[in-house]
Amino acid sequence: MTDRVLRYAGHAVQSVVHVRRGSLATLGARVRSAAPGRAAVLVTDRRVHALHGAAAIRSLRRAGFTVELAIVPRGERAKLPRPLARLWDAFAAAGLERTGVVIALGGGVVGDLAGFAAATWMRGVAWYGVPTTLVAQVDSSIGGKTGIDLAAGKNLAGAFHHPAGVLVDPDLLVTLPARDYRSGLAEVVKVAFATDARMFRALERAAAQLAARDPDAVFRAVRAALAAKARVVTADEREREGGVRTALNFGHTLGHALESATGHRRWRHGEAVAIGMRVAAELSVRAAGLDPGARARLEALLDRLRLPAGLARCPVRRLELAMRMDKKRANGEVRWVLTPRLGHASVPRLISARMVRAALLDAGAAA
Amino acid sequence: MTDRVLRYAGHAVQSVVHVRRGSLATLGARVRSAAPGRAAVLVTDRRVHALHGAAAIRSLRRAGFTVELAIVPRGERAKLPRPLARLWDAFAAAGLERTGVVIALGGGVVGDLAGFAAATWMRGVAWYGVPTTLVAQVDSSIGGKTGIDLAAGKNLAGAFHHPAGVLVDPDLLVTLPARDYRSGLAEVVKVAFATDARMFRALERAAAQLAARDPDAVFRAVRAALAAKARVVTADEREREGGVRTALNFGHTLGHALESATGHRRWRHGEAVAIGMRVAAELSVRAAGLDPGARARLEALLDRLRLPAGLARCPVRRLELAMRMDKKRANGEVRWVLTPRLGHASVPRLISARMVRAALLDAGAAA
Repeated sequence: MTDRVLRYAGHAVQSVVHVRRGSLATLGARVRSAAPGRAAVLVTDRRVHALHGAAAIRSLRRAGFTVELAIVPRGERAKLPRPLARLWDAFAAAGLERTGVVIALGGGVVGDLAGFAAATWMRGVAWYGVPTTLVAQVDSSIGGKTGIDLAAGKNLAGAFHHPAGVLVDPDLLVTLPARDYRSGLAEVVKVAFATDARMFRALERAAAQLAARDPDAVFRAVRAALAAKARVVTADEREREGGVRTALNFGHTLGHALESATGHRRWRHGEAVAIGMRVAAELSVRAAGLDPGARARLEALLDRLRLPAGLARCPVRRLELAMRMDKKRANGEVRWVLTPRLGHASVPRLISARMVRAALLDAGAAA
Repeated sequence: MTDRVLRYAGHAVQSVVHVRRGSLATLGARVRSAAPGRAAVLVTDRRVHALHGAAAIRSLRRAGFTVELAIVPRGERAKLPRPLARLWDAFAAAGLERTGVVIALGGGVVGDLAGFAAATWMRGVAWYGVPTTLVAQVDSSIGGKTGIDLAAGKNLAGAFHHPAGVLVDPDLLVTLPARDYRSGLAEVVKVAFATDARMFRALERAAAQLAARDPDAVFRAVRAALAAKARVVTADEREREGGVRTALNFGHTLGHALESATGHRRWRHGEAVAIGMRVAAELSVRAAGLDPGARARLEALLDRLRLPAGLARCPVRRLELAMRMDKKRANGEVRWVLTPRLGHASVPRLISARMVRAALLDAGAAA
């Protein structure tokens, strides 16, 4: 299997993403080249630890690290102020110093929490990401966003803190439940539709293999998504107002609202983004000149990957309120990332409330 | 009274320190030029709010800000994970967005906490510092260090996040208790002795007026300390290993240990630093070639400013342990910032445990 190293300019460090099947065994050597110290704290949850913890620890020890283990709660409830404070306490108990390194082994939640704890431990220590879900491998593993949720909303407290490196091993996805896998594919489709028409065509050609979880097809999709995302993040690291990085929010204006309006229970993040993309593509046809044929191709690809469609009678007013509450609003205004062309997103723009409501109702929201 | 604007390169923003007597009334206009949005959250404690809150709010409102008030606990117990989480919740309740601004009105604790909350709110919003104690005006108001304490130690969780601006109004110090005032003078002496011999001579000349709290002498000392610190911080923003910024830790190796060994009750921070400087100067004579006359001048100035001397029979083993536990150690080693010459600190270096113990015992530690 080929090895592919993607480099992009990190905020303060050079971040390196290693994409390779079976690469978990090389974790220790990778971290060694990124972190000078001896002490490593491995942050993971019980389930991931049972699946991959021993292999990670073995590789780290072989590279000369002393490894302390910090187990965090499973799922979103780990991304909260109290588990963050507990993780800081665990760093203290492990004697983690400025030269030490934090390893985040798990899904997006583990990466967001451990990355934020590393960003703020002694005002910043190095961390290394080992994402174990598809969505984390393609979406949250690079970009430098870390953070936790508050009662008032998701990701409200956080920091930009690029990992010293990310090890992406697509073979870790074999143990991923089918629904989580499909949810991750939504983020792959998003990157392609919003930033890279060629990649989108490749996904269309590979749709059957991706639906069947063919390992090489998964590897190629992960690699392509990471390359596309690295290009965008390099061009606009801090997600400036009007910067190209906002393209990665395609499908997220409604996606986030859908998750929050349904208490984060009904849909996985990627499923909500898939629905959000369908509505954003429809708005792109109505307000940004997107060719209806491109919109139809997006719908067809999402269908073939068995990603959900329709708003399932979610009350339209609840969605509108949730969109206004989202932290990405500026001065309370809701902005949409649209796609005038397949592979090209525009900067976020205001869309009339009437047009949005019509699209939501057409997509199955309840009046 | 003259106005003096100090500029130094911030991490992501240009930070500006305004030093001027009576400048609190100009707060709103200053913040307006540093922050684009309309929403401001004023973070302070009850005592400072009673003294200066109304004037701050009036000035902010006059400049067009909507001001929400967030009252934090008084003293060090505000610098903890739970008050931090409460402050984030207050930001959410205030509807603080990325374009908003946080104003920290208070001593070092308020600045450290509010600055850290701002650093991590939506991955970083602007903050503006209005330090109301001498130690905060000269020491913690610039440098970009923010953070909270954990059970395991001080400032363990934090971030580098430069304020968008700092308004230093020496007239706010009139209400400061005498002991807090003297404690702040220790930091002024520290900056001079470690980085600026000319400033040290000026402090010697002004010692009587400073001891008497003459407003113009205080103004000039604050201004000189800020200028000296800005030079050092500009040269070495991230406090690199071996960077010049470590000079500002002169007196702090023992100072921190002394505070922690006595449960942060017996000595104010500046008092502990004064004692720490006396011992560091003695070690500088013994191990770094400092002229004993320069050491005597430091002792004399600290005496004239009525800053404490001697370790008051604090057990030497407890001090040694506390120094090893301090977060500034690398690989568990205790390093000292020494001064080979008055006005010039060296990079932190290892000193033999025997020599340190002898100096501690000579300074009055209990065997």
